[in-house]
Amino acid sequence: MKVAVVGASGYTGLELLRILLHHPEFEIAAVTSEQRAGREVGEVFPALRGRLDLRFEAVLPAALAGRVELAFTALPHAASAPVVAALRAAGCRVVDLSADFRLHSLDTYRKWYGEHAAPERLVEAVYGLPELHREALRGAPLVAAPGCYPTSVLLPLAPLLRAGLVETRGIHVDAKSGVSGAGRALADGYLFAELDGNCHAYKPGHAHRHAPEIEQEASEIAGSEVRVSFVPHLLPVTRGLATSVYVRPRNGDAAAARRALSEAYAGEPFVRVLPDGEAPSLQAVRGTNFCDVALFDDARNDTWILLSTLDNLGKGASGQAVQCANLVCGLPETTGLLDTAVLP
Amino acid sequence: MKVAVVGASGYTGLELLRILLHHPEFEIAAVTSEQRAGREVGEVFPALRGRLDLRFEAVLPAALAGRVELAFTALPHAASAPVVAALRAAGCRVVDLSADFRLHSLDTYRKWYGEHAAPERLVEAVYGLPELHREALRGAPLVAAPGCYPTSVLLPLAPLLRAGLVETRGIHVDAKSGVSGAGRALADGYLFAELDGNCHAYKPGHAHRHAPEIEQEASEIAGSEVRVSFVPHLLPVTRGLATSVYVRPRNGDAAAARRALSEAYAGEPFVRVLPDGEAPSLQAVRGTNFCDVALFDDARNDTWILLSTLDNLGKGASGQAVQCANLVCGLPETTGLLDTAVLP
Amino acid sequence: MKVAVVGASGYTGLELLRILLHHPEFEIAAVTSEQRAGREVGEVFPALRGRLDLRFEAVLPAALAGRVELAFTALPHAASAPVVAALRAAGCRVVDLSADFRLHSLDTYRKWYGEHAAPERLVEAVYGLPELHREALRGAPLVAAPGCYPTSVLLPLAPLLRAGLVETRGIHVDAKSGVSGAGRALADGYLFAELDGNCHAYKPGHAHRHAPEIEQEASEIAGSEVRVSFVPHLLPVTRGLATSVYVRPRNGDAAAARRALSEAYAGEPFVRVLPDGEAPSLQAVRGTNFCDVALFDDARNDTWILLSTLDNLGKGASGQAVQCANLVCGLPETTGLLDTAVLP
Amino acid sequence: MKVAVVGASGYTGLELLRILLHHPEFEIAAVTSEQRAGREVGEVFPALRGRLDLRFEAVLPAALAGRVELAFTALPHAASAPVVAALRAAGCRVVDLSADFRLHSLDTYRKWYGEHAAPERLVEAVYGLPELHREALRGAPLVAAPGCYPTSVLLPLAPLLRAGLVETRGIHVDAKSGVSGAGRALADGYLFAELDGNCHAYKPGHAHRHAPEIEQEASEIAGSEVRVSFVPHLLPVTRGLATSVYVRPRNGDAAAARRALSEAYAGEPFVRVLPDGEAPSLQAVRGTNFCDVALFDDARNDTWILLSTLDNLGKGASGQAVQCANLVCGLPETTGLLDTAVLP
Repeated sequence: MKVAVVGASGYTGLELLRILLHHPEFEIAAVTSEQRAGREVGEVFPALRGRLDLRFEAVLPAALAGRVELAFTALPHAASAPVVAALRAAGCRVVDLSADFRLHSLDTYRKWYGEHAAPERLVEAVYGLPELHREALRGAPLVAAPGCYPTSVLLPLAPLLRAGLVETRGIHVDAKSGVSGAGRALADGYLFAELDGNCHAYKPGHAHRHAPEIEQEASEIAGSEVRVSFVPHLLPVTRGLATSVYVRPRNGDAAAARRALSEAYAGEPFVRVLPDGEAPSLQAVRGTNFCDVALFDDARNDTWILLSTLDNLGKGASGQAVQCANLVCGLPETTGLLDTAVLP
Repeated sequence: MKVAVVGASGYTGLELLRILLHHPEFEIAAVTSEQRAGREVGEVFPALRGRLDLRFEAVLPAALAGRVELAFTALPHAASAPVVAALRAAGCRVVDLSADFRLHSLDTYRKWYGEHAAPERLVEAVYGLPELHREALRGAPLVAAPGCYPTSVLLPLAPLLRAGLVETRGIHVDAKSGVSGAGRALADGYLFAELDGNCHAYKPGHAHRHAPEIEQEASEIAGSEVRVSFVPHLLPVTRGLATSVYVRPRNGDAAAARRALSEAYAGEPFVRVLPDGEAPSLQAVRGTNFCDVALFDDARNDTWILLSTLDNLGKGASGQAVQCANLVCGLPETTGLLDTAVLP
Repeated sequence: MKVAVVGASGYTGLELLRILLHHPEFEIAAVTSEQRAGREVGEVFPALRGRLDLRFEAVLPAALAGRVELAFTALPHAASAPVVAALRAAGCRVVDLSADFRLHSLDTYRKWYGEHAAPERLVEAVYGLPELHREALRGAPLVAAPGCYPTSVLLPLAPLLRAGLVETRGIHVDAKSGVSGAGRALADGYLFAELDGNCHAYKPGHAHRHAPEIEQEASEIAGSEVRVSFVPHLLPVTRGLATSVYVRPRNGDAAAARRALSEAYAGEPFVRVLPDGEAPSLQAVRGTNFCDVALFDDARNDTWILLSTLDNLGKGASGQAVQCANLVCGLPETTGLLDTAVLP
Repeated sequence: MKVAVVGASGYTGLELLRILLHHPEFEIAAVTSEQRAGREVGEVFPALRGRLDLRFEAVLPAALAGRVELAFTALPHAASAPVVAALRAAGCRVVDLSADFRLHSLDTYRKWYGEHAAPERLVEAVYGLPELHREALRGAPLVAAPGCYPTSVLLPLAPLLRAGLVETRGIHVDAKSGVSGAGRALADGYLFAELDGNCHAYKPGHAHRHAPEIEQEASEIAGSEVRVSFVPHLLPVTRGLATSVYVRPRNGDAAAARRALSEAYAGEPFVRVLPDGEAPSLQAVRGTNFCDVALFDDARNDTWILLSTLDNLGKGASGQAVQCANLVCGLPETTGLLDTAVLP
């Protein structure tokens, strides 16, 4: 099955190429990049020399649509919507890695991203978290792959919300992200000399664009409004996302909570519930599509601590997008995704 | 004034040497290290070649006491207490960087560290956080310099507890530490190949030895029992500690909280309350005795987020120890400590 | 075909597991580790949880030999030889990653490593650099996989020596290695706090154990004695090896040298000769079995500069070992090895 | 004595501020930055909050000259010359950190940097390496502070060239630099995600702008033309420069060479010749004005290996500039510069 990667020169685009090169069913038929159009992939990215014999093309949705059955769009927010709409109009299935089709409410979208360029396509978009929306994803025409932060929060939190085990207000999320989560943006703060040996929070509280996405999905699961304080941090790490979620128990004890987690993910190929007492690490998931989760009980302070780790380019972006694409195309969900962490 | 650094070959010991070499009033008269006794400092640590013309000695408290007026003890927990007691018996003032004299309750000490080797000296020990205990520190015979985690939590939290502005239960502390906070321990998890690109929590909840220390001091300030869930993380960073404290407001609004912070630290030389909207970073405090703090209001989720950063070897250990020693000896508190961050 | 990884808990052992898990022909039937015998692989290495359902065994060569056709031995130098001999005696093919069977001269071995424990097996050992010894490796009973440094020096240098284009004396090799090249040794110098932001040479000149290995192979190719000054450095990097080789031209110009390189590697799957003017990087080979090489001409100083990069755990150790095993077993040489670099 | 830092928002400018804040004789009276003019220093660089109560000004040489006796100019190459000329015309002494006044030959300058904007000032410029040009620097009106690479090559090499102990052709320089050596340039290659875990050569041979500067000074010392092949590398390190210089002995043995080094630097406060067998490291010089040098003898390959390390922002730029300024102003040369390395 022929696929395209639209916006292939950013980090999520590159990770898509890395995964798809090993995927036994998807064949990379086209890669696009406005900036690098005309140049060979291996010349721009020496790591891919001898691995992928293609040239970057300019993005021409209609032309692409005739050549591929499915396109991964890895474009910036807002830039993605019109391209997705055009691809869809030309009959192409799309897994979109931007935020453009994640939020159900146009008002919310407008508040965080500005005017939406293709609101008519929202209705066919499915939020691409297979552990929550697997059935809807099968055969879906348009997938809105989630952000890295929401994935890392929702996977440990969802089973507890679903079982009504935790308070839905006063949830505190402290997240630490590798810098590739910000894409290949050229900004002072992403320079090696600025980030090496550094760590800092940014946009703490309810100021980061992923906060409404977390609350949308969490509230849907809980059946009532969920509120989180969300404090993202930048780590001096290239790949990886470590998240702590502090919740207050509502019904039941920690054993019930652990049971809810274990049962929810017993059959899931990419969510590993760690044994009691073991904390997840970035190293164990680096370069993979796994999300590791753990629960710690601090009963004396009426708190459960949920910890999760994932690779922000893997389960937090491109790995998850391929997992969704497998579902869209009726393939076994793990196809091409059972990589082992690069260790050390 | 002649001083000794006892246990000078660990990281806090080395940082003491670095600071004391520039201190106009303290002269390093002796450095001890059991392991390196007899060797020249500059041979063991090439960075100090040409800077400090001394040999490491074995630790002999009575002999030391005759040669110096004040000793900094930078020994492991439990190993420190008998040395401190001997130095005190010989008439030497001591600033101890271990945990041995921080906890007021012997039961609590026993639970976390085992039997105490010199309980009779607890009564004269002052907890070495000048911003909380300045008057008691002036002329004190024995200072128990706090751990890096407690300093980073107490400095932002104390003014709000003191003013009764926050709930004393359900406090969530998410802390991220550079690896030098663990000292120069030879353990798998501190190897470059294991920590590079990695990040993980350890001992989450109420399992880390610094948790009771935080609660002791916080409860004393609040006048009632304070409980915190404490989740420390290891960062791929050598120096620095970034802490988030999630609290629930009790009385007053965020403006009142900010005012409490600003007023508490208006005259403090080493605590910088950042302007609204600015998050602290490790880089801004690296190599210094500063602690930067900020408050963010997430009113919609009934949460205030306190952020702080410090250098775990500076304000989190050796810088603070020298600040205390200045008070002990009647010197201006900032003597030798106004270093500027190494940037970048 | 069933294989064993003997000494599977070190870094080269782990990388073998990572590669073999994706290898379509080799099945991991046994993993051994003296230290971890009896424990589940996924418990010791959380990254492998759910990927490999085996327990570490103690090393029992005779027992292993009955269960597997080929064993990879990733044991320390000197410890490896007797295990290899026992595996061979029991009829098992062996790819050995230690230095024990690399040096043809027992005297040289003795000088650098001490007494050899199984000198009778040297005669059947083939030096495992397929680009130099491909035919001898096909079906070989015992392969001595080369060190990371020799591979990085020999691949760029061999074609020029073979063609007689460079002086065989006065060669200068300046190599920079990631720390995993030293294995999982617990030593001060490999601690994060010691290596982060650091870089230094060690054992410069002719003092590193890989120097005689480089000279043995280079001299064999040149047909006369080759001498190199070898200066290894430690980088604050987990994986990767970047090497500069400074040579003096003897006959012919830089165009001839470039031609010799290109022709030598035209059909090689894992050596990429970069286009003129492009320098190799660690990033482009990270996690792969590629070695990237380039030649720069400094005619005004009568010098050619050969640059190479490889992943010290990939082409520098475990990747190369699997490449050899493919040859030993008559499989296509690239089987299981066409990974794409983890980027970024 | 009042001084200005012109171009204070780059990394060498910031390091000048850090050093000057502790300098007992120089007072920072003005800091300029075109980009940040009008903003408070502590607002732009939170690390300097509370340390320096000044606003960035636009660069107005004539106005500055009236207020300060000496200006440090830390502007980009080519941009610096006209500012320096204007400052000089207004009577201000200048220590220039750019390349604009380092090369004696206008033709050479033109080849590497383009047309020179103030050639008439070349005659009064002294190359700012005190160990080579101390007497000329005393009271000099204009100092051309050297680049980091030349300093790291010339300090170990000069004594051997001066004594005629080494061949002047066929010298090979392999240098590894931290990224702050490139300034705060916003380029893809300096992003954390591109440099972390990476290392690569750039501009190998005779293609880097510092090569002619090295050869100019080396030839002057040797009294005949010296040629070096110069291969700079980028390290995943913020600060530091490690250099290997491979030379061929001409007269005398390694003992003579070591003696030449030791005698040359016996009285030098900032060059430390390491004991036999000890290799220099970045860590030992980080944050300081030291340059550590060592010589290793590989007699069997007719090669001496000179190793040096320095902090590219310290002895490689701003520290050295202050050392020169001390000489210019008749102060003791070490004033304000005896910092101890930040360790670890």
